[in-house]
Amino acid sequence: MRTLQVDLGERSYPIHIGSGLLSRPELFTPHIAGKQVAIVTNETVAPLYLETLTRTLQGYSVLPVVLPDGEAHKNWETLQLIFDALLGARHDRRTTVIALGGGVIGDMAGFAAACYQRGVDFIQVPTTLLSQVDSSVGGKTGINHPLGKNMVGAFYQPKAVIIDTDSLRTLPERELSAGLAEVIKYGLICDEPFLPWLAEKMPAMRGLDAGALTEAIERSCAAKARVVGVDERESGLRAILNLGHTFGHAIETQMGYGAWLHGEAVSAGTVMALEMSSRLGWISTDERDAAIRLLRSAGLPVVPPADMTPEHFLQHMAVDKKVLDGQLRLVLLRRIGEAVVTADYPRDVLEATLAADYRALADQLGE
Amino acid sequence: MRTLQVDLGERSYPIHIGSGLLSRPELFTPHIAGKQVAIVTNETVAPLYLETLTRTLQGYSVLPVVLPDGEAHKNWETLQLIFDALLGARHDRRTTVIALGGGVIGDMAGFAAACYQRGVDFIQVPTTLLSQVDSSVGGKTGINHPLGKNMVGAFYQPKAVIIDTDSLRTLPERELSAGLAEVIKYGLICDEPFLPWLAEKMPAMRGLDAGALTEAIERSCAAKARVVGVDERESGLRAILNLGHTFGHAIETQMGYGAWLHGEAVSAGTVMALEMSSRLGWISTDERDAAIRLLRSAGLPVVPPADMTPEHFLQHMAVDKKVLDGQLRLVLLRRIGEAVVTADYPRDVLEATLAADYRALADQLGE
Repeated sequence: MRTLQVDLGERSYPIHIGSGLLSRPELFTPHIAGKQVAIVTNETVAPLYLETLTRTLQGYSVLPVVLPDGEAHKNWETLQLIFDALLGARHDRRTTVIALGGGVIGDMAGFAAACYQRGVDFIQVPTTLLSQVDSSVGGKTGINHPLGKNMVGAFYQPKAVIIDTDSLRTLPERELSAGLAEVIKYGLICDEPFLPWLAEKMPAMRGLDAGALTEAIERSCAAKARVVGVDERESGLRAILNLGHTFGHAIETQMGYGAWLHGEAVSAGTVMALEMSSRLGWISTDERDAAIRLLRSAGLPVVPPADMTPEHFLQHMAVDKKVLDGQLRLVLLRRIGEAVVTADYPRDVLEATLAADYRALADQLGE
Repeated sequence: MRTLQVDLGERSYPIHIGSGLLSRPELFTPHIAGKQVAIVTNETVAPLYLETLTRTLQGYSVLPVVLPDGEAHKNWETLQLIFDALLGARHDRRTTVIALGGGVIGDMAGFAAACYQRGVDFIQVPTTLLSQVDSSVGGKTGINHPLGKNMVGAFYQPKAVIIDTDSLRTLPERELSAGLAEVIKYGLICDEPFLPWLAEKMPAMRGLDAGALTEAIERSCAAKARVVGVDERESGLRAILNLGHTFGHAIETQMGYGAWLHGEAVSAGTVMALEMSSRLGWISTDERDAAIRLLRSAGLPVVPPADMTPEHFLQHMAVDKKVLDGQLRLVLLRRIGEAVVTADYPRDVLEATLAADYRALADQLGE
């Protein structure tokens, strides 16, 4: 087992990464203050891991809260089911909410914990690669609004993140790829030497090699913990973690939540950020192409939806949380391994980026 | 104008109290970071003060959000109207939400500010006595759930509280009385010398004497600021502010939100807390009776609803936020001017308190 620390003063917490951690009560008990525990999970994950975790927590009064699966359910109606369950079972302020599942479960259970009786403890137990390397760390929680993704939420830190790498064995291949989009992101924004390692280990990771995956998760969480430790509430640096996300969120909103996986949308969005960085002369077309190839080798889409116009993108991006006083700030690459957040770019470069022919670019890079 | 400070480190903020403050832009502008402002108010308050405040904020892009009036609307559906308006008008993370109204507006606007894009600035402009002396200070925000009051919310501090005492001129007499319940509470829990002052000034306050009201508001806010400064998130001392509230919340829940005003329910609940403190031998029956007379002189009910049984109370109190590991903690008076929060009382004293004949007690105290 590897353990990292997220440094946030009195809100600091550990990230444990390893095999079989779901069965180790000593990792959970230090973070449970009362006698009540609610395990929030979904219909897909519950049959796989709920029994194991419940057994690990014997001695506590455990309330299972099983939600429908999918980004389409990341809304108030589903959140309400958590409050209904907690109140129905009379859970008090010392209850601990455990999020057992992917990013949607973590975001919703975390937001429920942030709001229930104005805040109760919670523990993240992410079971997808994407949530293990990204959403479970850093305290962003929330739900979607019909007019925008993650528009309602809270910064609320977990007491611990417990990552059992065994849970990746049951993860569909498409979701493993989606997680790799965020892993590659860390290389692009702040860890250039990570990129050749990823290129080399890509087949091993996709083949579920435990060693390669553990190292990729650890390195990703360490990068995220560094960034979040500097800027917990995204007043500055933290926004670099959103490379590809502004374009990606627009894709997710346009296509309807769930049609594209978050990591898939981020992958296509990252290609657009690479293209724009290259048009600005900040990275070379060779560097752009190498990054696109790496994304594709992870099994990820590198072309935005064919029927999505520049107008569609602009419309959705106008409600992005990075808009300030009407200025759309974008995460771009000043060079490979260094991201910047900037509103200081020529408008026509953005428009050219939105209008670029990504299908042709992908075809030209071959298989 | 009087100014107090709530000391919470980097979350400290001023409370301004005085006449005509709604028309003074210099009190607002230091707390507005961007160009966008949303004024959240309700159908009753909007015709009275929205135009004045909008004029004060000329130069900003002002979005009015007018909600239905009343505690019955303090729920997710109404909260959603705020998010809809903010997103529809493309308000970004630098927007400032101003709560213009009573406690329900302050709680909902504050919770919306806490959650919108994971947190934007907000300013409290309370227009009822109750919200001026209580809910606008201290950062408790939230909405009700069908199974319990204020069960979903956040601790989220405003950037400033601006109390224009002129707004009390339009306040219905019944609501003025409701606010006096919380004013009297401060005397009972932590400021014994305040009580004879209140008894003397009660006719002046009920007659809207500006001097008496300003002093009562200032002294109440100062008491609240002291308590909140010691214990922002109610891990201990802060719970004393809930004198009468556990019984009172049960009354509100049983009767349906809005049938009893919050301050009215707190008044009857305070009588029950006085009765229980007296049964425990902590205060004398004379002290109990003097406090009940003071509440009645403020025009407040001192008898719980006739058809509410001890079972009704127990059922609603079981989901109180002060329940920990199944133990119901109550705010009681160790002596007049000193409240304690305790689960250490004989069960039969609670039951006798719930079963006591408050109608007879009130009749015996005469008019």
